Amino acid sequence: MHDAAFLTTATRHGGGLMRAAAAYPDAPRPWLDLSTGINPEPWRGPRAAEAELNRLPDPGALAALETAAALAFGAAPERTAATAGAETAIRLLPLLLGVRSVEIVGPTYGAHAEAWRAAGVATRLIASDQAATSQAGVLVIVNPNNPDGCLTRRADLIAMARARSAKGRWLVVDESFIECAPDDSVSDVVEPGLIVLRSFGKFYGLAGVRLGFMLAAPDLISRLGALLGDWPVGADALTMGRGAYADAAWRARTEATLSERAARLDEQLTQAGFDIVGGTSLFRMTRTPHAAPWFQHLCRAGVLTRPFDHTPDALRFGVPTERDLARLARALETFS
Amino acid sequence: MHDAAFLTTATRHGGGLMRAAAAYPDAPRPWLDLSTGINPEPWRGPRAAEAELNRLPDPGALAALETAAALAFGAAPERTAATAGAETAIRLLPLLLGVRSVEIVGPTYGAHAEAWRAAGVATRLIASDQAATSQAGVLVIVNPNNPDGCLTRRADLIAMARARSAKGRWLVVDESFIECAPDDSVSDVVEPGLIVLRSFGKFYGLAGVRLGFMLAAPDLISRLGALLGDWPVGADALTMGRGAYADAAWRARTEATLSERAARLDEQLTQAGFDIVGGTSLFRMTRTPHAAPWFQHLCRAGVLTRPFDHTPDALRFGVPTERDLARLARALETFS
Repeated sequence: MHDAAFLTTATRHGGGLMRAAAAYPDAPRPWLDLSTGINPEPWRGPRAAEAELNRLPDPGALAALETAAALAFGAAPERTAATAGAETAIRLLPLLLGVRSVEIVGPTYGAHAEAWRAAGVATRLIASDQAATSQAGVLVIVNPNNPDGCLTRRADLIAMARARSAKGRWLVVDESFIECAPDDSVSDVVEPGLIVLRSFGKFYGLAGVRLGFMLAAPDLISRLGALLGDWPVGADALTMGRGAYADAAWRARTEATLSERAARLDEQLTQAGFDIVGGTSLFRMTRTPHAAPWFQHLCRAGVLTRPFDHTPDALRFGVPTERDLARLARALETFS
Repeated sequence: MHDAAFLTTATRHGGGLMRAAAAYPDAPRPWLDLSTGINPEPWRGPRAAEAELNRLPDPGALAALETAAALAFGAAPERTAATAGAETAIRLLPLLLGVRSVEIVGPTYGAHAEAWRAAGVATRLIASDQAATSQAGVLVIVNPNNPDGCLTRRADLIAMARARSAKGRWLVVDESFIECAPDDSVSDVVEPGLIVLRSFGKFYGLAGVRLGFMLAAPDLISRLGALLGDWPVGADALTMGRGAYADAAWRARTEATLSERAARLDEQLTQAGFDIVGGTSLFRMTRTPHAAPWFQHLCRAGVLTRPFDHTPDALRFGVPTERDLARLARALETFS
């Protein structure tokens, strides 16, 4: 059994399907990857033409992408910078802001704490009810939170952004899953100390393309641009990002479809004995006293879920497609 | 005439074809872009499958890419980190090395000085004959140099790397065009203070894919990895990079083809009155007292070349394909 070593690596992020397949060689193929919160039915539209792969991305194409995205976010283009995934923005923020202390509402997505600690900044996880009174130079809130889906309301975020800005402090809101709760986005809010991060890959189901955004004051956007250089994202990101963000009909339809499926997944999981403790329409967070045996049982059925080192009774499920809901239902029925 | 404004923007980097087309609306289409040193006949092989766009890149795929590239470079995989273009490595180096002074052999590719200055490091351009005695914390050499093709010999680089390492100083060798002079690569050399940067997009003709590498001591590679996160490059970079670096036959054939064409381009340019002052088999650097009128004449013929603010009598030509050599010849003949 390779479970022990595999569990450790699987916990750091979702993904790692190749490692799962190696650890469970007898599992049925193809694997059903529910270890991430990525929409399994991506936006479909043209990829970059071959000729676009051959040349350096044109500055005009980058501007067109940022304009289309800004429009979808309700933000101004001059406050919007494309990055090679939200991850890039998360990793570079400590270098841009030059502060001595950060507080992160958590537990949450681990890359935030990793990035600040790597930069030598005093980093503390705090509970959500401590956020409003944080005195740290930077406060990070993931909204909705990953992995538990906990939502901070827009009005509360605006109040915090305003109060912190007045004291020269930053508020970073990571809206990687905000398409699941669009009413609580603050991407359109202008406060000097407010920085919003967006992800393209999750809701649009194109994580392999590597595209995300930072929304912030124009001077910060300029400094980020200097760090990234003139070609921050690749040809597919330029073409598909521009097409997808302009497609308001797909966005509306997908919001509805994902919500319905999340409700169906909850039914299945509840019936199998899981407690649903939160989530978004892209992933559901559950509790069960049998999380480790469940994880292994599902691996043997070719279904990869997401366990957590720090919460051994937790298991997170990505929301599957219609067809894969049926496959998961069969796997859930055979647990003993 | 939009030439003045356009010349300024065209000088910063090559590229900017959309701006050129706007400034010269009557130029014949399609434009022939000779403003960069990117191979116009790219390596051809499968792009990432649609399913790869849908998910986060697997850590195993990144390791496979880095192993294939390391093998092609003669380097160890644990000394090899993929980045979203050599540009990303250039921009992040100042943050990794924490030094107070840098000397850059120049004039050279402008992003090096930009990156160090943006990080607040004392930055000085030096002549190539001053390199061996540089006392700066970091010495940067682009080899072969862009834009003039000036070559620093492998033996000299090894001696510098050794001497600088002994004093705790760094030597950064930017080998973005080294496939044009493979005998002088130091990608295989192990010295604690030696850092080599590689570009995928130029020789392989896939600049839109955004892929490059840093080769360095494993602890530096780890720190770079922490800055980039787990998904430093996109799906096309993983698939095409792995395929291209494993294709030794294509590499050998392309080295020969590019050399032949560069010789043919030199003939045409000499006949038109240009002095060839250097270059590589991907671009040729010329001098002419009529650089500005030549640039404008070629733009009117739909051919974009690369002028330089700091050397107003210089014009750089990317090496065209067989067919485009004929088109360029016609444009060169009609100058008056």
